Amino acid sequence: MKAIIVMPSNAPKNKLEATAALGAEIVTVGPGSEERRLRAEQLAAEHGYAIVPPYNDEKIIAGQGTVGLEILEDLPGVETVLVPVGGGGLISGVSAAIKLSNPKVKVIGVEPELAADAQASLRAGRIVSFPAEQVSRTMADGLRTQSIGAINFEHIRAYVDDIVSVTEDEIREATRALSANARTVAEPSGAVAPAAFLFHADELPNTKINVAVISGGNIDPALLAELRKN
Amino acid sequence: MKAIIVMPSNAPKNKLEATAALGAEIVTVGPGSEERRLRAEQLAAEHGYAIVPPYNDEKIIAGQGTVGLEILEDLPGVETVLVPVGGGGLISGVSAAIKLSNPKVKVIGVEPELAADAQASLRAGRIVSFPAEQVSRTMADGLRTQSIGAINFEHIRAYVDDIVSVTEDEIREATRALSANARTVAEPSGAVAPAAFLFHADELPNTKINVAVISGGNIDPALLAELRKN
Repeated sequence: MKAIIVMPSNAPKNKLEATAALGAEIVTVGPGSEERRLRAEQLAAEHGYAIVPPYNDEKIIAGQGTVGLEILEDLPGVETVLVPVGGGGLISGVSAAIKLSNPKVKVIGVEPELAADAQASLRAGRIVSFPAEQVSRTMADGLRTQSIGAINFEHIRAYVDDIVSVTEDEIREATRALSANARTVAEPSGAVAPAAFLFHADELPNTKINVAVISGGNIDPALLAELRKN
Repeated sequence: MKAIIVMPSNAPKNKLEATAALGAEIVTVGPGSEERRLRAEQLAAEHGYAIVPPYNDEKIIAGQGTVGLEILEDLPGVETVLVPVGGGGLISGVSAAIKLSNPKVKVIGVEPELAADAQASLRAGRIVSFPAEQVSRTMADGLRTQSIGAINFEHIRAYVDDIVSVTEDEIREATRALSANARTVAEPSGAVAPAAFLFHADELPNTKINVAVISGGNIDPALLAELRKN
């Protein structure tokens, strides 16, 4: 099936290349999230394409909810689940799946400080947007969304206990430690939840059986090499 | 508890450092396997220490057999299991656990060509030893054992269907591919079983549900950086 992927112009080269290598046609616009959405909608209208939105969509949220169901199945005694937050799709699905199955399990979102718009939104009680220039500065390129979606905000308000933020140094060290100690290749966006466990335990529930969702693993090889070279 | 670890003088620096960092006292001899065994026995005799042998021991084999039991539990339909072979401890336990549970599952050992002494032994019907100078040349430093143990040989004869060997280039590429595509940090010794699947499918059983055991993940960071730098 033909696939056209609208990506931000500041996406890492390895992600652009990997997407092209899988056979997709890539359209870059950027770097604002709103531009991407408008361009996808324009392409869909012109050519009759179906849109697969990245996060603000009930079907996408339901699909990502299977991560929460898998956690409950594999580790029924889980007490706290940490989930990275970009546009809010993953945490919407995971938190709904977990809270509707077992409301006693805590669900905590994790964002880079530079893109902590979901944390700000949860605290303000309304969707807060961060400037593209600021969110572009986090190495966690998968979490550079400027604001969460309206559907995601409702899920987060209903099902997420708290959102914590981590610094760039903490993200870097967690990415390195996952490779060195957990034998897991994570990209910086994927390492934010473990970074919260490593460096912000005082802000997390005082529980013993915890899960950190690591998503994803498309690290720029040059960055992995730099982190592991010593 | 005090632990003294007898390691070969040509062990990678990162393994020596990681062992020391965990609090062990390290004694290096080397690089021959026989020297290591004799030195450990000498230390045990002098100080009354308990010896934990690396592979030629029924308790070690039984412990490593749990890997086989876990595979059967997690994937009851498994048809073929590939296991790296150094001294033969891991494959002795895994093959016994699997064959005594379900004799229809194929168990295949994998060795570096430069240290294919278990393959040679299985074919000759007696334990064949490789020279230390040759086995030292494989990048799979965990598989540089010159010969398998007598107890391991009996297990391999009874429970292992075949042993295949992989080249240094294949080990290198499998190590890279595991990091890039499977998001798994493997050391070269840990990548030999996936290397067999990637490059020697014609020598393997024609089955669809296959498991490759990846053990271990203590890769030299400089090597990982080199493999991932492009």
